[in-house]
Amino acid sequence: MSYLTAITTHDVRFPTSRSLDGSDAMNADPDYSAAYLTLETSAGDAGHGFVFTIGRGNEIQTTAIASVAARLEGRDVEELLADMGGTWQELVHDSQIRWLGPEKGVSHMAIGAVVNALWDLKAKRAGLPLWQLLSRMSPEEIVDLVDFRYLTDALTRDEALEILRAAEPGRTAREATLLAEGFPGYTTSPGWLGYSDEKLARLCREALDAGFTQIKLKVGADLDSDIRRMGIAREICGPGFPIAIDANQRWDVEQAITWIRALAPFDVAWVEEPTSPDDVVAHAAIARAIAPIPVATGEHMANRILFKQLLQLHGAEVIQIDATRVAGVNENVAILLLAAKFGARVCPHAGGVGLCEAVQHLSMFDFIAVSGTREGRMIEFVDHLHEHFVTPVHLRDGSYLPPLTPGAGTEILHTTLREFAFPDGPIWRAEHAQTPLGIR
Amino acid sequence: MSYLTAITTHDVRFPTSRSLDGSDAMNADPDYSAAYLTLETSAGDAGHGFVFTIGRGNEIQTTAIASVAARLEGRDVEELLADMGGTWQELVHDSQIRWLGPEKGVSHMAIGAVVNALWDLKAKRAGLPLWQLLSRMSPEEIVDLVDFRYLTDALTRDEALEILRAAEPGRTAREATLLAEGFPGYTTSPGWLGYSDEKLARLCREALDAGFTQIKLKVGADLDSDIRRMGIAREICGPGFPIAIDANQRWDVEQAITWIRALAPFDVAWVEEPTSPDDVVAHAAIARAIAPIPVATGEHMANRILFKQLLQLHGAEVIQIDATRVAGVNENVAILLLAAKFGARVCPHAGGVGLCEAVQHLSMFDFIAVSGTREGRMIEFVDHLHEHFVTPVHLRDGSYLPPLTPGAGTEILHTTLREFAFPDGPIWRAEHAQTPLGIR
Repeated sequence: MSYLTAITTHDVRFPTSRSLDGSDAMNADPDYSAAYLTLETSAGDAGHGFVFTIGRGNEIQTTAIASVAARLEGRDVEELLADMGGTWQELVHDSQIRWLGPEKGVSHMAIGAVVNALWDLKAKRAGLPLWQLLSRMSPEEIVDLVDFRYLTDALTRDEALEILRAAEPGRTAREATLLAEGFPGYTTSPGWLGYSDEKLARLCREALDAGFTQIKLKVGADLDSDIRRMGIAREICGPGFPIAIDANQRWDVEQAITWIRALAPFDVAWVEEPTSPDDVVAHAAIARAIAPIPVATGEHMANRILFKQLLQLHGAEVIQIDATRVAGVNENVAILLLAAKFGARVCPHAGGVGLCEAVQHLSMFDFIAVSGTREGRMIEFVDHLHEHFVTPVHLRDGSYLPPLTPGAGTEILHTTLREFAFPDGPIWRAEHAQTPLGIR
Repeated sequence: MSYLTAITTHDVRFPTSRSLDGSDAMNADPDYSAAYLTLETSAGDAGHGFVFTIGRGNEIQTTAIASVAARLEGRDVEELLADMGGTWQELVHDSQIRWLGPEKGVSHMAIGAVVNALWDLKAKRAGLPLWQLLSRMSPEEIVDLVDFRYLTDALTRDEALEILRAAEPGRTAREATLLAEGFPGYTTSPGWLGYSDEKLARLCREALDAGFTQIKLKVGADLDSDIRRMGIAREICGPGFPIAIDANQRWDVEQAITWIRALAPFDVAWVEEPTSPDDVVAHAAIARAIAPIPVATGEHMANRILFKQLLQLHGAEVIQIDATRVAGVNENVAILLLAAKFGARVCPHAGGVGLCEAVQHLSMFDFIAVSGTREGRMIEFVDHLHEHFVTPVHLRDGSYLPPLTPGAGTEILHTTLREFAFPDGPIWRAEHAQTPLGIR
């Protein structure tokens, strides 16, 4: 028997706003950050989880993770890991914490960090990467991870079981395919709003050379500029090469439709986050108006209940799960099942800090044990900050190669935790020394 | 000119779980709490705001309020108060904080506390209670408070102006009516799940005697028990007296419909929070199935975007705004305008800590300057914890009498802040001394 003995949180921030990496129509100057959690056990091992944020407020998220995790101090680790569905429900249904959401925002993401740290520990104890641990579970074990409350008008436990059982026969063959070929990636690196036209053109060429099957451009700040940038990207990528656009929630319904129609002549692979992630009704209206251009969204959708409605109303064809926005692996399993039920493609949001490392496991699990296909599916890739992770992603010819190291991919290097600690780590002391007021 | 000189937060909790006040199907043991903010100025005055929570996690909310408010330290108070619409947008559109929601949960409620503290200060400086300050603003000034982003497919600025202009001629007469008669209240005090049948019966009688026009029972934990309790309440209140039920988000769609149909013979005034507050699609399905029984919801709806969709899909007839769930007065003004556009009745959620004190201002403003009617409208009343406020609510014959003291009603007594401070105030030291582990 082992116990949770130590719960440690870290506020880690990277001064990315200096280079305008990650700049888009809604996020002008992000400092990519992680509110990071380590759960240590009496057996001497540990699990790691985090929430990705973009700077200010990372201290709020860190406080929330510490508060949620404190409830588990001293608990029997085997018991928690043996029933991850029950553990999820215990955390999510804690009525006092639930009041702060319910099931959304800071408190819900905090639960996600705790849940993901437990999955990291569980995978390490099993000696398997998370994708393999999940895709070797039985259909019954998988549905036991999911809380079907608020889902049954769209997906029942029995329907979920059916989906998983239908995918069971091909698991072994698909795992072999995955190990041989990897999972397709696409890249957003060329398209940040803050980049010059020259940098955009150069990065488009590099994306093609690297073998990516799609690129994505940030749009939504200025239509003329978007038309010019789409023209550059289309010219370099050539006709037929998929170019998606991402408005980062910038528009209302009418504005979205007008803007997208103006960019449609450049052949748009999908339109991402055209409006508020809470607005499933608006997504449905936009999707109807711009068909057959697909709508993609999800990175900011708060929970499975919003994804359910988005699918019920046909508001999006492309479902962009995020590893740290919802309450961890369990809730993402629910969303994968919902997407499979409605025949939507799952193309995860990634980038940020460690989102590629974490979310690849879910797409690989989806391919092997849920949807059973990679058709039209790909994982976002942004080439930032991977060097801070113990098991950084590996790509070959634009595809993610399945990680083989045990765990969930969520562990950050000790040196990074120390150097990028906010506000007292050496990187931030140096930053602050350059800023007249000593504050950001 | 005056500046914001001091920003102080307090974690204040009341040990209400001892008496099962406030117990419902989802919240078994709440300790009613306030994450409280004081903004002090160089002119020597101050504004106060808070977020209501139910215990654990109040420290997360307090941290978030301190982080959001810190952005305003040293700022010119006149400038902030002169353009409350601009101030709201500055706080809500801060891209780094926005990432933590967006516009929902802990970070959004924290903005609400700051916005409400500024309104408290603005009303005090104007020498008016908030309801009067708001209802004396011109239609143009009122729409300038509202951010129409994500609303324009349902409500444009021009449509909002039309609504406000239509209500302008009757303002003076309605203010006189309000001052003479007050605003109708209804009470939830009899109906908490943790109460015995005898206590339920006694409190029903007391509610009738006090002149309330409706009572409300918590339901959703056990159907047989709900049928028995509804029978008791109906017998005491007599036929025709409005009895609402409140499931506190307990059900899925099918279960809600079955449960409500079983209680329908007792004549149900409305069904409150039948399912997840995020699920506008499910609310619409339930509303269609149980018509003509109205659906009521809103106390946990994260923002105006969810209210908009709820109204677009006809998911609720009764809109239950909450003073501290969304981003303060400005966002509630947007929701009042949406409700007026769709012809929905606004019956605020109250109770908790100070929610009656704060939200009454919004209903009174709605009556005078927005909807122009009290027809079918009433404010929830729960007789808890009013004694901790500088300007507690006054009721007469079941109606809220309009407060005449300048401010937003959000100021807590100094003695309360000290005595109920968590975890180190005298009340909690005494509580902890009784608990073996010294923790809750």
